[in-house]
Amino acid sequence: MAKNLTTREEDYSKWYNELVIKADLAENSGVRGCMVIKPYGYAIWERMQAELDRMFKETGHVNAYFPLFIPKSYFSKEASHVDGFAKECAVVTHYRLKNAEDGSGIVVDEDAKLEEELIVRPTSETIIWDTYRKWIQSYRDLPLLINQWANVVRWEMRTRLFLRTAEFLWQEGHTAHATEKEAIAEAEQMMHVYADFAENYMAMPVIKGTKTESERFAGAIETYCIESLMQDGKALQAGTSHFLGQNFAKAFDVKYATKEGGQEYVWATSWGVSTRLMGALIMTHSDDNGLVLPPNLAPDQVVIVPIYRNDEQFEAVSAIANELMAKLRAEGIRVKFDNRDTHKPGWKFNEYELKGVPLRIAIGPKDVEKGTVELARRDTLTKEFIKNEDVVAKVKQLMVTIQAQLLEKAKSYRSEHTTEVSSYEEFKKVLKEKGGFVSAHWDGTSETEERVKNETKATIRCIPIDTQFSSGTCMVTGKPSARKVLFAKAY
Amino acid sequence: MAKNLTTREEDYSKWYNELVIKADLAENSGVRGCMVIKPYGYAIWERMQAELDRMFKETGHVNAYFPLFIPKSYFSKEASHVDGFAKECAVVTHYRLKNAEDGSGIVVDEDAKLEEELIVRPTSETIIWDTYRKWIQSYRDLPLLINQWANVVRWEMRTRLFLRTAEFLWQEGHTAHATEKEAIAEAEQMMHVYADFAENYMAMPVIKGTKTESERFAGAIETYCIESLMQDGKALQAGTSHFLGQNFAKAFDVKYATKEGGQEYVWATSWGVSTRLMGALIMTHSDDNGLVLPPNLAPDQVVIVPIYRNDEQFEAVSAIANELMAKLRAEGIRVKFDNRDTHKPGWKFNEYELKGVPLRIAIGPKDVEKGTVELARRDTLTKEFIKNEDVVAKVKQLMVTIQAQLLEKAKSYRSEHTTEVSSYEEFKKVLKEKGGFVSAHWDGTSETEERVKNETKATIRCIPIDTQFSSGTCMVTGKPSARKVLFAKAY
Repeated sequence: MAKNLTTREEDYSKWYNELVIKADLAENSGVRGCMVIKPYGYAIWERMQAELDRMFKETGHVNAYFPLFIPKSYFSKEASHVDGFAKECAVVTHYRLKNAEDGSGIVVDEDAKLEEELIVRPTSETIIWDTYRKWIQSYRDLPLLINQWANVVRWEMRTRLFLRTAEFLWQEGHTAHATEKEAIAEAEQMMHVYADFAENYMAMPVIKGTKTESERFAGAIETYCIESLMQDGKALQAGTSHFLGQNFAKAFDVKYATKEGGQEYVWATSWGVSTRLMGALIMTHSDDNGLVLPPNLAPDQVVIVPIYRNDEQFEAVSAIANELMAKLRAEGIRVKFDNRDTHKPGWKFNEYELKGVPLRIAIGPKDVEKGTVELARRDTLTKEFIKNEDVVAKVKQLMVTIQAQLLEKAKSYRSEHTTEVSSYEEFKKVLKEKGGFVSAHWDGTSETEERVKNETKATIRCIPIDTQFSSGTCMVTGKPSARKVLFAKAY
Repeated sequence: MAKNLTTREEDYSKWYNELVIKADLAENSGVRGCMVIKPYGYAIWERMQAELDRMFKETGHVNAYFPLFIPKSYFSKEASHVDGFAKECAVVTHYRLKNAEDGSGIVVDEDAKLEEELIVRPTSETIIWDTYRKWIQSYRDLPLLINQWANVVRWEMRTRLFLRTAEFLWQEGHTAHATEKEAIAEAEQMMHVYADFAENYMAMPVIKGTKTESERFAGAIETYCIESLMQDGKALQAGTSHFLGQNFAKAFDVKYATKEGGQEYVWATSWGVSTRLMGALIMTHSDDNGLVLPPNLAPDQVVIVPIYRNDEQFEAVSAIANELMAKLRAEGIRVKFDNRDTHKPGWKFNEYELKGVPLRIAIGPKDVEKGTVELARRDTLTKEFIKNEDVVAKVKQLMVTIQAQLLEKAKSYRSEHTTEVSSYEEFKKVLKEKGGFVSAHWDGTSETEERVKNETKATIRCIPIDTQFSSGTCMVTGKPSARKVLFAKAY
């Protein structure tokens, strides 16, 4: 059935933009670079939030809330951080408007100029570490394991719904520890939590690794990341976790009294994922018919569509649908019965295909006679008739099967699109003809990294943590290399 | 045990400020008027959010997210709205900083001035109705029942933690309807939802009513509200729900095609509650020993404190505590076992009293011998010994009892502090000597309302919806009055 959706083959980028709009996930607003997250898109984000929040709490974290605004001077305190974040940002300079004297409308009241400008937070390390100074005195106050769910603003020039927007929603964890070892363990733990979430909820396989110096977070000693591969062969950074050393503790003078009576600077981490995950979710599984959602994150896991020509048929079908809905809900399945008479079954089939509902159940007069329903899978687009008494068990089993198969499919795609190369020629050829991850030896210098980026647009996505050390020579310079790293063009 | 807390009698306002800080609920930040909500305060807010969100969804609402920034021109579109909201606000004028040429730090880049200033949302009617224009074409698109959880900014000159802050967290519902009747029903429904939440979760009795014209939301035809009474005899507006008529639909040109083929403007409501509820919760129940939390919102409903002098005793006590904790959790009770050896039992007793944990269970070596625990209620400060086998049943019963008694106590206080008066002299005397709500006849004019406010600082909190019409004469002017209204000094 025609969705009027550009195919991935035709234009992947256009397909993505159209899909986000047509599936009612998000749209651009009247404010440059800021999106409106529509109810259906937000419902998926809420499910992501709920699972992540549970995982954070299970690992000992609590939530708190810090100010939206950060005084300009705070940014200057951590030298590398200011370059990374304080430049492209929304700056609040005044706190009042007034009626224009010529009656033309409202204008900024120049009498209400702030003494110090406020930055709308692009990330909250500075305001949070300014607060932690008051909260941390002794080793007894550590570790401090705090997360914040918030909106942040980075003034992006080129924006794309979910992938890159001026304002976005995210969570940012900020932890303080007594020792370097503990802080590193925390940063690594959160990378694993993110990977666990990506694989088990988003059904999106990820590579865990560390970033090179040039790709590191501004102010971090080490940035851990999870990298995923989209269907167009481009990589997407899905989450990062930073070991910040004592940089912010020193910048904001946060020390603690040790058990032994000394004074030490505190060790820090920060970690975050954002509404960008929505973009990753969409691009990992969806097809030319629309969205494909993994059951673990689908707002509706099952939709029941009635087929009827008159009231009598509608009643017979509805009786079965309502009974089935009650049974499925009792099993914890999120199910919706779309009994609207304003839309035809064909329209509904199309709609739920576009919106990626994992399972569709259609019930018509013939099904009532036979005691069956028609069950359609969104991921495989296959259909089968199931006896009423078997539906609940079948649906439960399919929730698990679909979730697993989506992950497997994405893993297969990634395997097929991960290529080991040994020469720079081969590297360029693979990037051009096939895309995906390219694993190659690199001499460890920023110069070589920069050269590859300029010549091929590929960046080092990460130094994977799960690969073996295997010495070789850099594909570009021939200098020695301790292990292969993962290159790709990226979002 | 001394908490070093100013008593309510001594200075209610100081007591409140100290309590918020000492109970680890919130604190001021380095940004004028913006607070940091600390983990314990945020945990209470999260419980409020969870219950409210459930209630909104049960009444058919879905969540979405709209931009933080609103173009200045949007505010000018609804005439009364601009006066109410666009004046005291944070204004973003630039989108970039740069290194100062004299090397003195970072400064605003004047080349990055926005063509049109952006206002940090003080409320989102304008940006949302600008969006609804695109979403609403036909009667089939109505009603549109959307809620947003967000941060908002109003540039307040005098701020107080939770009660009045420049930035605060809230939810704002924005609905669109085909008929006036439906929109009014929605606005009234949400007032009832808020009242239900206040009474059944916060254990805070509220008066439902409508606002007078001068106290109405800027842009509303009718403002419904819930009003509560604090322990110092001052009223607090805890939530509002507005019937906006067609004002925003007309301002943003939002029309729909009726079933009959006509074109009509859409009818609107908006409604919100904020982190101000935290202030109301604190001031309704707490005492000179600290916070008192109703079980339905307490992050920890029960805390178990072990008493021991040596490892052997600690192990014996812990065995009982762990078993009890498992049993209570199985019943859905939120329980914490504070087995930290860094703090003494006395310190812990003090801490949990200050933090308002509804029930404290202490277990010492003698209790182990006797097979009992000591159970202490935070609200009444009473203690009793309970046999181990009876603890779970007793705790479950107390959760219900405490919740109900807190509401009853607050209701009694309110009854005692609600006075019917018939003369202005009596009115002033009651306000001065007793405070609380004062019910009196009013002639319905803004002039009289203004005069009372200027002379006594009391405002009309609401025209209660549950009172009978009973004609009389205005206490100030002697003019006819259709029914009594509720006055009070207010937060």
